[in-house]
Amino acid sequence: MKFDDSKNKQNLQELLDTRDFVPHISVDCVIFGFHKGIMKVLLLKYHDLDLCSLPGGFVFNDEDLHDAAVRVLYERTHLSNIFLKQFQAFGDRNRTENNAHRVLLASKHIEVPKDHWTFQRFITVGYCSLIDFSLVGSFPNTIIEECKWFEVNDLPKMAFDHEEIIKQGLEFIRRNIDTQIVASSLLPEKFTMKELQTVYEIVLGEKFRRNNFQRKILALNSLERLEKLFDGSANKAPYLYKFADKKLNDI
Amino acid sequence: MKFDDSKNKQNLQELLDTRDFVPHISVDCVIFGFHKGIMKVLLLKYHDLDLCSLPGGFVFNDEDLHDAAVRVLYERTHLSNIFLKQFQAFGDRNRTENNAHRVLLASKHIEVPKDHWTFQRFITVGYCSLIDFSLVGSFPNTIIEECKWFEVNDLPKMAFDHEEIIKQGLEFIRRNIDTQIVASSLLPEKFTMKELQTVYEIVLGEKFRRNNFQRKILALNSLERLEKLFDGSANKAPYLYKFADKKLNDI
Repeated sequence: MKFDDSKNKQNLQELLDTRDFVPHISVDCVIFGFHKGIMKVLLLKYHDLDLCSLPGGFVFNDEDLHDAAVRVLYERTHLSNIFLKQFQAFGDRNRTENNAHRVLLASKHIEVPKDHWTFQRFITVGYCSLIDFSLVGSFPNTIIEECKWFEVNDLPKMAFDHEEIIKQGLEFIRRNIDTQIVASSLLPEKFTMKELQTVYEIVLGEKFRRNNFQRKILALNSLERLEKLFDGSANKAPYLYKFADKKLNDI
Repeated sequence: MKFDDSKNKQNLQELLDTRDFVPHISVDCVIFGFHKGIMKVLLLKYHDLDLCSLPGGFVFNDEDLHDAAVRVLYERTHLSNIFLKQFQAFGDRNRTENNAHRVLLASKHIEVPKDHWTFQRFITVGYCSLIDFSLVGSFPNTIIEECKWFEVNDLPKMAFDHEEIIKQGLEFIRRNIDTQIVASSLLPEKFTMKELQTVYEIVLGEKFRRNNFQRKILALNSLERLEKLFDGSANKAPYLYKFADKKLNDI
């Protein structure tokens, strides 16, 4: 049993009535967007409520955890074919005490029992990605929520512990910047050292001196130097690089 | 309600009868041991069964996920005060189909209903650590299991997907070798480049040339050079190093 993105109250009610989910487990996706020097994060903004949440959802009984993250992201944002990487499970006992579901359902006059499963304790598994947001088309907009980019440095009020999840997702991206997870979605297959440096500076939020950056990056032995970029003035043409062969999952 | 390590069938039966755990969630600890060039992993070996498992267990309703990992590790191994780091959640739908609990309980003639909660689907959260096994005292030995070190390269038959969890835990340690998680438990506060190289070689399972190693490590900017190690022959004394100030949780 699979749900399309719930366009109306009827669909939401059906979702709430189902028993096909693994209790107490959810997935949340932290999708960072990157373009021209700005980092953003993709959030659901609830209509009529001063509250945002990550695109998240539940795991079907017959579904692998990772597949649930892919499906939930698609249902809520229509994003597909992006590289989703699990980064952390969040399981503090009181993490869902500030229960956003309750507020949301009340605001929509949807009634569910007080002991409904969505109000129980949840342990959520965070998945993240970093994509070029200029390449993304339009998002679904339902009666419940709209899907929007927000600046990472200026987050709105977040449901549950989602602000902490975003913070840890960003730390994960930064720690793994030397692996392909970061650059592979943002750079062409062949890139110049300057292009790579720009990605590093924006993701890490700091500036580097050109020579220092080049020396440190090359010491990692993760790049392969290719031909020069031909631009007509061969003498000053920069070299092109690509990542040395590693599997994308090797992080 | 807390359990001591269950020394007898009575205690195990009580644990099975409880309703105080969060359903469908478990924690598993991958404790790597390191001493004189050998990497080992700490496992529970079931008596009379050709089967081992990671020290793992369940999460109390009123307990944070991380606290559950610390408690479970202590109950099953008596290890405490070690740095446990969450590395991955495992949630394939069929990961507990080869149900070791069922085999174990049958072998001990302990009867539980076929739909007992321990036979349901579990998503487990993996925590790992790396410690000097020469510093560890004796382990508890119950009627159900004994706790022993096994060589990482020669694992016994493992329950569930625990072999995969160990593999991913080892990958996590290797990816994070440049952070303090690895070295802080294995090296004194001040160490020589040679001592550090030995840790790297054993954990990564490969040899490095001395000059190459030193160049790469220093390029990471994570070390601080201190005074020379005074050993009477000052000229050839090696420098001591320590890790530059970073929080242990910054990985």
